[in-house]
Amino acid sequence: MAGDGAPATPAAFYKMLSVPDAVELILSETALLPAEEVPFAAAFQHTLAADVRAAEPVPGFRASIKDGYAVLSTDGPGEYDIAFEAFAGVAPRTLTPGTVAYIGTGGPLPEGADAVVQIEDTEFLGAAPGGPKRVRIKKQAAPGEDVRQVGSDMAAGEVVLQAGQHIGAAEVGILATVGATTVNVHRKPHVAVLSTGDEVCEPDAPKLELGQIRDANRAMLLAAAVGTGARATDLGIARDTAANVEAALDRTIAEGADVLLTTGGVSMGDKDFIKPLLERRGTVYFGKVKMKPGKPLTFAKVAVPERNRSLLVFGLPGNPVSSLVTFHLAVVPCLRKMEGWQEPRLRRVHVRTAMPIKMDPERPEYHRAVAHWARPEGAAEGVSSGELVAASTGGQISSRLLSLRSANVLLEIPQASGVLPAGSRVSALVLGDLGSMPVPEVPAPTVLP
Amino acid sequence: MAGDGAPATPAAFYKMLSVPDAVELILSETALLPAEEVPFAAAFQHTLAADVRAAEPVPGFRASIKDGYAVLSTDGPGEYDIAFEAFAGVAPRTLTPGTVAYIGTGGPLPEGADAVVQIEDTEFLGAAPGGPKRVRIKKQAAPGEDVRQVGSDMAAGEVVLQAGQHIGAAEVGILATVGATTVNVHRKPHVAVLSTGDEVCEPDAPKLELGQIRDANRAMLLAAAVGTGARATDLGIARDTAANVEAALDRTIAEGADVLLTTGGVSMGDKDFIKPLLERRGTVYFGKVKMKPGKPLTFAKVAVPERNRSLLVFGLPGNPVSSLVTFHLAVVPCLRKMEGWQEPRLRRVHVRTAMPIKMDPERPEYHRAVAHWARPEGAAEGVSSGELVAASTGGQISSRLLSLRSANVLLEIPQASGVLPAGSRVSALVLGDLGSMPVPEVPAPTVLP
Repeated sequence: MAGDGAPATPAAFYKMLSVPDAVELILSETALLPAEEVPFAAAFQHTLAADVRAAEPVPGFRASIKDGYAVLSTDGPGEYDIAFEAFAGVAPRTLTPGTVAYIGTGGPLPEGADAVVQIEDTEFLGAAPGGPKRVRIKKQAAPGEDVRQVGSDMAAGEVVLQAGQHIGAAEVGILATVGATTVNVHRKPHVAVLSTGDEVCEPDAPKLELGQIRDANRAMLLAAAVGTGARATDLGIARDTAANVEAALDRTIAEGADVLLTTGGVSMGDKDFIKPLLERRGTVYFGKVKMKPGKPLTFAKVAVPERNRSLLVFGLPGNPVSSLVTFHLAVVPCLRKMEGWQEPRLRRVHVRTAMPIKMDPERPEYHRAVAHWARPEGAAEGVSSGELVAASTGGQISSRLLSLRSANVLLEIPQASGVLPAGSRVSALVLGDLGSMPVPEVPAPTVLP
Repeated sequence: MAGDGAPATPAAFYKMLSVPDAVELILSETALLPAEEVPFAAAFQHTLAADVRAAEPVPGFRASIKDGYAVLSTDGPGEYDIAFEAFAGVAPRTLTPGTVAYIGTGGPLPEGADAVVQIEDTEFLGAAPGGPKRVRIKKQAAPGEDVRQVGSDMAAGEVVLQAGQHIGAAEVGILATVGATTVNVHRKPHVAVLSTGDEVCEPDAPKLELGQIRDANRAMLLAAAVGTGARATDLGIARDTAANVEAALDRTIAEGADVLLTTGGVSMGDKDFIKPLLERRGTVYFGKVKMKPGKPLTFAKVAVPERNRSLLVFGLPGNPVSSLVTFHLAVVPCLRKMEGWQEPRLRRVHVRTAMPIKMDPERPEYHRAVAHWARPEGAAEGVSSGELVAASTGGQISSRLLSLRSANVLLEIPQASGVLPAGSRVSALVLGDLGSMPVPEVPAPTVLP
């Protein structure tokens, strides 16, 4: 307003993109972060930047699969002297035909032996005074029986993990097994988060004045960024002046962040200091997205020539719901691409709606909902398909943060008039971990035709 | 063996439980960890131990939903003086009937106004020389239109988050919005991890001797524990003596861990120093579970009277695959219950198998597989149900850690003879984050009848 009483409408000059077009544009401007070498255990939850090969075969020796006796299979069933015990760490010995050796699971098969007879197929006979211990072998072993051959789990030189593989706990184990104790992974993004607005207070403000609100966005977006695995820096609250916002941008660059998230100041009001700044310092790709909630979403890139890289800037709406929904839709795919995800887009599933949903004739809506696994209506016990049923979180006004409480999907409600009836099947974008969704009504264990 | 050549078979004295019975027994012996008060941002990814109420209404004032003009609705359409601008932080003023005030989204509605007319339904007229700025209001506003009433998002005293709620990013935002800057959450478990065995080497050992293996289990289980949100302590490798294993138990207790995971030493071999120790120091609930892989699984509790609590001990098998599978099946539900999950069991879904799977007539198998969302075979484009299809990870021998590579489900293959044909529908336990599964072939956005 600043003096003329006429609201400026800079956002009106920016192109309005659809959400899918906006996401594709963001991804096309997002570069994979460079690889760095880290100790293998620190690679957990990162994405591999290079293939990992087994330098040695696993197992590196013929290993018993069972507790039992190492035998020469051609000796066959009968009573045998127990010549020795074959354990790791014990100097290797050779088995003489006509004798057997006790061996534990994982123990090294002695030279001369070619099979293991498990303990359940034997009978320990004890020792005659002064004589060796003896055992009755009750079963004819096939050559190689209950023996893991050298390299049977992993061959020397085999690619055991490919570039692009996400490193979970099992993959940490695979790295350890092959002795790959340093690995190349993509760096995780560093995200800086700034709130803007004269009306925004710290969450612990003792008392709010008229028109003031507690800052929900910053803590929420810091948590959301950390939740994706990113490193996050809190830039605080910038009061509404161009100098304050530019100072925050400069600090972001100085700290080496890859992504800046701002909230507020990107609506139609005249206090949008973000877009003019970004126009001056870089390129604004779009300033509006056709969606509900969250229309005023800005995406820009600021070159950081002294570091030979770019800073991506997302100007998210000030409404808490809009800011978190646009974070999921626009920022999460960007962060995933940076850290090496091969498919960085949000996962899409079909869900059955649990209640009628009013559609918006002007914009497609990303309707917050709680999906859970359930038996389809009318299906008999034991024939569940594990269908996802989604219940709306209630009133979807973009200020109502409770509409995001427990939400794990965004229903993609098309731009249309009328009401989508309960029981409709709609596509939905997955926000959280479907693995922790409320228990499905799937009987266990089940096999269905 | 220790000198007599006859393998001791202590495990034979322990009851063999089914997996579901074992899990229920574990959960019944698992206590919720105590609550602690933490700053709200640190509550991220924890479970609330007490309800959180809004101490004040949100919004705390009548707030505009749009950029536009605050009006008295009975004034109706027409040309009006713009009396002032209503922004947060500006001293509140009262609107005189027959005038309007410019207001931004989120701004406080002035006393005397009862509605907002959005900017799109107005025309700025400028000011005559020396006169006030004027605007044409083109629309009849209904009372309350585009105004968020006090408490309409959250009422003062309303329970905004319930005990048991998992705190994600949105919930962090809800806490900030209501100024709940300290909250009560359940402590996360502290897990200590020990490998045992004379044959076990550090992963970075330059060269393996005959019978030696690199320790995959420890780094893998530490990562898996951290992946659940637990704090994890590395106890190293204990050589196979009773004293070493007891020293590790004592260290676990001294460090205040809630759970001890050991691997190795729980098979039928005579080097099981774990169970005799646990018998002496606590209670062993079971020593075998009827499953493939991972039969030798021990669960015990050791009282720690000086801290007025108990240590839960899981003796996991030494085979890497068995250790991680039993971690998921037995330990994850325990850790989830400790930190307050209301449903701590693994989630179960139905999947369609992509290949034939040989069943085991002696034990139910937890077959590692990679599930992805796919269109059911034969379904036309656009009528996907988002079914999960699961591909086996290949050879399931319990030493073959590659069978866990990328695995995100455990197929529950029943104990039976024969082969389960490809295309069977079987229940599966979810290991990872289904939200990051490979992209489903769901067209977007879609609404299906």
